Amino acid sequence: MRRHYATIKDIARALNISVSTVSRALRDTYDVNAETRQMVLDKAAELNYRPNFNATGLVKNSSHNVAVLLPAITNYYFSTVFTGIQEVAYRHGYNLILHVTNDDAERELNIIRSLSFSSLDGMLVSVSSQADACDHFQEIIDDGVPVVFFDRVAEHVGTSKVMQDDYNGAFEATEHLIAKGYRRIAHLAGPQGLTFTANRLQGYLDALRKHKLPVQESWIIHSGFGQESGYQDFQQLWELPEKPDAIFAVNDRKAVGAMLAMKEMKIIPGKEVGVIGFTNDPVSAIISPSLSTIAEPAYEIGRVSCQLLLNHIRKKNFVAEEVVLPGKLIERESTQRNR
Amino acid sequence: MRRHYATIKDIARALNISVSTVSRALRDTYDVNAETRQMVLDKAAELNYRPNFNATGLVKNSSHNVAVLLPAITNYYFSTVFTGIQEVAYRHGYNLILHVTNDDAERELNIIRSLSFSSLDGMLVSVSSQADACDHFQEIIDDGVPVVFFDRVAEHVGTSKVMQDDYNGAFEATEHLIAKGYRRIAHLAGPQGLTFTANRLQGYLDALRKHKLPVQESWIIHSGFGQESGYQDFQQLWELPEKPDAIFAVNDRKAVGAMLAMKEMKIIPGKEVGVIGFTNDPVSAIISPSLSTIAEPAYEIGRVSCQLLLNHIRKKNFVAEEVVLPGKLIERESTQRNR
Repeated sequence: MRRHYATIKDIARALNISVSTVSRALRDTYDVNAETRQMVLDKAAELNYRPNFNATGLVKNSSHNVAVLLPAITNYYFSTVFTGIQEVAYRHGYNLILHVTNDDAERELNIIRSLSFSSLDGMLVSVSSQADACDHFQEIIDDGVPVVFFDRVAEHVGTSKVMQDDYNGAFEATEHLIAKGYRRIAHLAGPQGLTFTANRLQGYLDALRKHKLPVQESWIIHSGFGQESGYQDFQQLWELPEKPDAIFAVNDRKAVGAMLAMKEMKIIPGKEVGVIGFTNDPVSAIISPSLSTIAEPAYEIGRVSCQLLLNHIRKKNFVAEEVVLPGKLIERESTQRNR
Repeated sequence: MRRHYATIKDIARALNISVSTVSRALRDTYDVNAETRQMVLDKAAELNYRPNFNATGLVKNSSHNVAVLLPAITNYYFSTVFTGIQEVAYRHGYNLILHVTNDDAERELNIIRSLSFSSLDGMLVSVSSQADACDHFQEIIDDGVPVVFFDRVAEHVGTSKVMQDDYNGAFEATEHLIAKGYRRIAHLAGPQGLTFTANRLQGYLDALRKHKLPVQESWIIHSGFGQESGYQDFQQLWELPEKPDAIFAVNDRKAVGAMLAMKEMKIIPGKEVGVIGFTNDPVSAIISPSLSTIAEPAYEIGRVSCQLLLNHIRKKNFVAEEVVLPGKLIERESTQRNR
């Protein structure tokens, strides 16, 4: 049995302000000042106001639901991005429907096919790594659904995108290894066909070229994003007749996998083989030797993506934007030759 | 502009089966065999079928939306539980609306007050650590909304609960330290007022009593769940005139924090001070020395919780169940005195 709940009118009457002010305070932070908004929220809480029993029809054509598609949630980067998204969504009264694609293009497609767009205001998407063909996203956008891509973006789909500066981060990571005296630098790359892995590869290649260092095809390995891939990639590198003296990994998990392989082979990271990652996963500060890395602005990427999507949802003619946020070099023990 | 999509009738006609079979195949795995279901899903994909434009009214009073309340998503345990929940939800066509409470009771209450129960079929909840008063959950349950608690449960609220076996896990962890020769065992506990931290404390106390070892109040510290708390707790322990020779931490993050404090003080974990955690966070295998721990069945807890909730949603008179899943001792370097 459902109980009786207070209405917006009850809140307006109790505070002696207009129903429309209450409605705007509950729904939108832009045209109501913070003090009024807080007063309304406090009174709403006191009177046990529930939006579903009252506010339907006040916000036309809006479900306040946003779908979020992520390749995984059990990794630091994506869970931090989600936390940034959630902060903005929470402040603006939006619900996040989270779908995890397990880095599986087929599952991504199944999820998209099952989405109920009539009860969604928009989508935030980081595409699955095998998803080279992104026609399904273009169809959704053509249907009028606001979509913002972040991190793993579908390059040829025309919509807003939020990324970290992968090219310059990779360039800086590689230059850091060079500055520390390493000369034979390998790259553990991600799978082919994704913009961000291509940008990190390009930053690596351009840094080598700038410093006139050799580019060896056999020192560039494309594989998955997991720790296990980094572990296997290092073993593969170590079977080569010409071995590298440093590794730039596309992310921290692969760098950690490579370091665990070194540990088994009694190779000392830093002293013998320099290692730098990309992410600044908490594990990079905990592993010994600690891992140098490029810190990604994960929380900020989530925050900005969600804000862009809300702007998109609210404006009829929103022009797509591309936002690129810078990373930051974190120098630790794994790139020190002399310790 | 929205395009035209196929209907359930189109699928039924194409496969030469009844509309009701198609509907059941799309909505429910129980009374349709796997082969038929796959055939329907394949055809639905081929014809670009979208449920929202067609199936409304076929499943009465059901939104297929479930709200998930978690204290955090940027930690291994909760993100793994969520992944388990998601596997079951995905298979049964349910959407998960994820709300992160930041371990903040006030925020939890704000989120619950803003939930639109008319568009939710049920809730999966791990309560925020300060939430001693759980009347708001009882109200929701009294209103007829199916709720399943997992991990951090509100003890006095009458509904289904899924937990790991915290008492026996803690007992086993403490006995493992004793078996390894440690005698002066401290406990870095979680905040007071939560069932699971109380159960782990009790397991610790009972193991000490069984082996007639001293219980010292000053060796039991209640604080937050983060790495920083473990770091500070260890510093506090090390200022005592009587120092412990081992630590059982309520989770791996606090154990890692304690080990980082030891590292700064040049104390060798294992050899000088034994350390065991609880979770089996991936970091426990990566830190050096590696961390002994009790592996929690996080994925399984998510899976079972979601399955229970779906049973609850589908049956009118569902009797609340309590499920307790066992953990598993993982012996690593941090509890070896001689290495």
